[in-house]
Amino acid sequence: MTDIPQDHPRYESLLAREKVAAGVKMGITSIQGLIAQGRGESFDYLIGERSTESALYAERAAVAALLLAENPVISVNGNVAALAPEKVVALADITGAKIEVNLFHRTDTRVHLIIEHLKASGASEVLGKNPDASLDLSHDRRLVSSKGIYTADVVLVPLEDGDRCEKLVKMGKTVITIDLNPLSRTSRTATISIVDNVTRALGNMAKLAQEMKKEKKEELVKLITSYDNKKAIAGAISEIQEHLKTMIAEVEY
Amino acid sequence: MTDIPQDHPRYESLLAREKVAAGVKMGITSIQGLIAQGRGESFDYLIGERSTESALYAERAAVAALLLAENPVISVNGNVAALAPEKVVALADITGAKIEVNLFHRTDTRVHLIIEHLKASGASEVLGKNPDASLDLSHDRRLVSSKGIYTADVVLVPLEDGDRCEKLVKMGKTVITIDLNPLSRTSRTATISIVDNVTRALGNMAKLAQEMKKEKKEELVKLITSYDNKKAIAGAISEIQEHLKTMIAEVEY
Repeated sequence: MTDIPQDHPRYESLLAREKVAAGVKMGITSIQGLIAQGRGESFDYLIGERSTESALYAERAAVAALLLAENPVISVNGNVAALAPEKVVALADITGAKIEVNLFHRTDTRVHLIIEHLKASGASEVLGKNPDASLDLSHDRRLVSSKGIYTADVVLVPLEDGDRCEKLVKMGKTVITIDLNPLSRTSRTATISIVDNVTRALGNMAKLAQEMKKEKKEELVKLITSYDNKKAIAGAISEIQEHLKTMIAEVEY
Repeated sequence: MTDIPQDHPRYESLLAREKVAAGVKMGITSIQGLIAQGRGESFDYLIGERSTESALYAERAAVAALLLAENPVISVNGNVAALAPEKVVALADITGAKIEVNLFHRTDTRVHLIIEHLKASGASEVLGKNPDASLDLSHDRRLVSSKGIYTADVVLVPLEDGDRCEKLVKMGKTVITIDLNPLSRTSRTATISIVDNVTRALGNMAKLAQEMKKEKKEELVKLITSYDNKKAIAGAISEIQEHLKTMIAEVEY
C-alpha cells in the first residue's frame, strides 16, 4: 500500500482506496468493486465524510435489531472484506451474528480467499463456501447457506445490490443495508437503511453493540418499534442538500 | 467486454464502465483510474447523465479557444484513452490540436500502449513518449513535451488533477478541463471548466468544432470574450441541486 501521511485532510478516504486496491491485488475484491468504491467516495464527499445524525439514528436501530434477532447474519462481499474485516468480526462477536460470504461476481477462489481473510481477522466460522439454498434471483447473489442468510430473521447486507435487497425483504426478513446513496433502490427498499460509509458504520455499530448489550430487552424493542426508516432516509437527503450548500458557500467566486 | 443490452436504461454508463475495465486489462488504465471512473459515475448520476445547458455553454467556448489557438494541445490520460480515443482524434483533427499523453501513474509501458491505442483509433502523431520539458510539480504529471503542453497556449486537460491545472493556469495558458465535480479544485481553477461526462463532452466538442470552423474569426473571439466561467460553474451547481430535487420528488415514500 502507498504510504499516506496521517495528517492528510482526506486520510480516511485515501486509506480506504488503498485497501480496496490491495483487495484487488489479493484477489478478494473485483474490478467492479473499485468502481463501486469510487461511487461511494463521491457520495461520502457530498455528505461531508462523517456519520450524520440520521446515520447514527439508523445504526442504533440496526444494532437493536441484530441484538434481538434469533438468527442474525452479516453478509460480506469483496469490498467489505477489503475495507473492514476486523469490524465485521467485532460486530458479529458482540451480537452473536453469523458471517456469510455472498458475492455478485462469484468465483470459488474469491469466496475461499475472503473466508481466509476474515479468519485471519479473527472470525471463527464463515459461511458461504458451500451454499445449499437459493434465492429467486438470476445472478450469483442467489447462492446462500440454509443455516445462514436463507433462514436468517435479520440480515445486515452492507454494499448490497437492489434486487437482492428487495428479495430478502419480500421473504419477510429485517434487512439492514449500508449504502451512501439514499436514493438507491437498496436504500429505498431496506427495512433499516444506513446512509453512511461502510467502515464508519461498522465501527459505530460495533461500539454501539458493546454499550447496548447491557440494556434491557424492552429498551431495544422500544428502539425498533419507534424507528422510522422514512425519517432516516429523508434526514440523509436533507443532510446532503445542506452539506452541498455549505460547500458552495465555502467556494469563493 | 460484457454484453450490455442497448435498451438498458443506464446503457451509456455501463458501457463506459466496461471500457475502463477493459482499459485496465489492456494495461492503459490504472487501478486508480477505475476508482476515478466510479467517482465520476456518481456525479453524472447527480447531474442526470446528460450534457446540461451550462456544460454546452462551456463546451462552445472551449471549442472557440481551441480553434483560435496557435498551439492547442489535448492531454490524454489512461481513462480518456480507454473511454473515447476516436473522439479525441476527431477533435484534434478538426481543431488542429496536438495530442500528448500525460500520466499521473506514469510508466513507459503505459505511455507506449496508450500511444498505440490512439494511433489505432486514427491519430497520426502522439506526443508524450520522450518528454523533454518539465513543469514545477513533484509527481510524474510534470513530464511534458516542449513542442506540446510546455509551449501550448491552449490546453484541453480532461480528467485533470488540481495541482497541474493550477500550474498550467499560472504559466499563462488557457486551460480547459472536463470534470463532473463543479466544486473540485480543477473546476475552480481552470479557465474554462466543463462540468460534463468526458465521453459526452468530447463528442459534443467534435460536433461543435465541425460547425464552428466555418464561422468568422470575430465570432469566435466574441464567444470567448463574452464567456463567463463563474457563470458556467454556478450553473452546473444549480443544475445538480435542481436534479437532486427532481430525484427526491420522484422517490415515493
